[in-house]
Amino acid sequence: MNGGGSCSLGSVLCVITGASRGLGKSLAWELCSRVMPGSTLLLVARTEKALQVLAEELTLKYPGITATWVAADLGTGDGVRRTVQAAHEMNGQDTAQRVIIVNNAGSLGDINKYFVDFTDPQEVDKYFSFNVSSALCLTSSLLKVFQGRPGLQRLVVNVTSLAALQPFKSWTLYCAGKAAREMMFRVLAEEEKDLRVLSYSPGPLDNDMQEEVRTHTKDPDIRQQFLIMKESGKLIDCHVSARKMLDVIQADTYNSGDHVDFYD
Amino acid sequence: MNGGGSCSLGSVLCVITGASRGLGKSLAWELCSRVMPGSTLLLVARTEKALQVLAEELTLKYPGITATWVAADLGTGDGVRRTVQAAHEMNGQDTAQRVIIVNNAGSLGDINKYFVDFTDPQEVDKYFSFNVSSALCLTSSLLKVFQGRPGLQRLVVNVTSLAALQPFKSWTLYCAGKAAREMMFRVLAEEEKDLRVLSYSPGPLDNDMQEEVRTHTKDPDIRQQFLIMKESGKLIDCHVSARKMLDVIQADTYNSGDHVDFYD
Repeated sequence: MNGGGSCSLGSVLCVITGASRGLGKSLAWELCSRVMPGSTLLLVARTEKALQVLAEELTLKYPGITATWVAADLGTGDGVRRTVQAAHEMNGQDTAQRVIIVNNAGSLGDINKYFVDFTDPQEVDKYFSFNVSSALCLTSSLLKVFQGRPGLQRLVVNVTSLAALQPFKSWTLYCAGKAAREMMFRVLAEEEKDLRVLSYSPGPLDNDMQEEVRTHTKDPDIRQQFLIMKESGKLIDCHVSARKMLDVIQADTYNSGDHVDFYD
Repeated sequence: MNGGGSCSLGSVLCVITGASRGLGKSLAWELCSRVMPGSTLLLVARTEKALQVLAEELTLKYPGITATWVAADLGTGDGVRRTVQAAHEMNGQDTAQRVIIVNNAGSLGDINKYFVDFTDPQEVDKYFSFNVSSALCLTSSLLKVFQGRPGLQRLVVNVTSLAALQPFKSWTLYCAGKAAREMMFRVLAEEEKDLRVLSYSPGPLDNDMQEEVRTHTKDPDIRQQFLIMKESGKLIDCHVSARKMLDVIQADTYNSGDHVDFYD
């Protein structure tokens, strides 16, 4: 890791989904420590209170940065629309050097089921709507808000997982959703050569989702594997992984569309 | 290809989705030429008339085989339910040596759009519902109907595409949907060791979908590429690809969950 000093990312406009906790929240903090005054963040998640507190704390510590937020359920068309509306209202659109759209929101789906236990299309539809459709439509809409211009780097981050590349027993929806996302962002990278597209796999994080993994994963081998990681201190702190993501962004040496892992 | 003589697949129960035309229809014909009398097919598609005609023609040529059909839209929960009900009523469940579930139904999505043109979550949701959710829920439900027993091989085929592995410009939904399907079937293969799971990529077929590709693909390079394949006679006849799929099934040497291409 190369650290990355103050202001090293320049003047930034950044949208982070799933920003109320875990990696998204850590990323908001780490980003603020690397951007120039005048930068603006838009924090998106379902829980209004958590976003409000985070925005206040960020603003207190970094008075030069504008932290805005929108409480929205991205599993609904209305949630996507309201997020896009909030992005329209962000300050600094003419002066930003970087736009960063971080598709971090995501859910595990029901991991207490095996493939053969999924017989209700509505449950599966709902999963893909929140985890795939919204990431596609929100990204597209935000790229229309933040039009390209000389001197502006536009970057789309897809928070992915090893599960996008490798099947895990009892994670049917999570694996399929992450695979779908990663592929659609590879298509974006092929189509839009003026964008930078990064699928970042943050590693096994010490967060709420990992607790769900340890307690709810139906397959005993997989559950045990993550229990041992927790007990042996192998889970990664969200701030550490967020810093690594920003290092990758700053180094800017990956090929657009690539899957880059925390351990790479 | 090893050809495969008459009856070489034994006594078979087979469900084929998207059976009214193209690869699904060819597969129905090729399968009938390799199964024992007493075998039963269930043909699924939206178009009732085409299924009825196909079932009649198959029965006329192969009087020992029962060809049943259900007209169902697999993009709806009702369509999945009616297909499962029809599977319950199939003859030969106690005597079949092989159950083959072929998830062949699929659509391209709107290929006259780039990634950035998808801003309506409902359109994307609908695509995933038909192409991913239904394949998952139908397969799971059918595996409950066709329970494992000694002497029975249960095989799940996912008709996939090179687009599951490689991004194609202006095929956002198709690539993402195929990637999702392939991954979820890899999870199934990991979880259910008594099943055989095959993701078969039939190659560029000379079918209606390819015509749509040639005429509607927004990206001019990709469109041109497939136009040239058509004009130079490189597209594959559906019967030829269907025979290859059955050769792969008979040879039975792939690893469960593998992606096997027509050209492999």
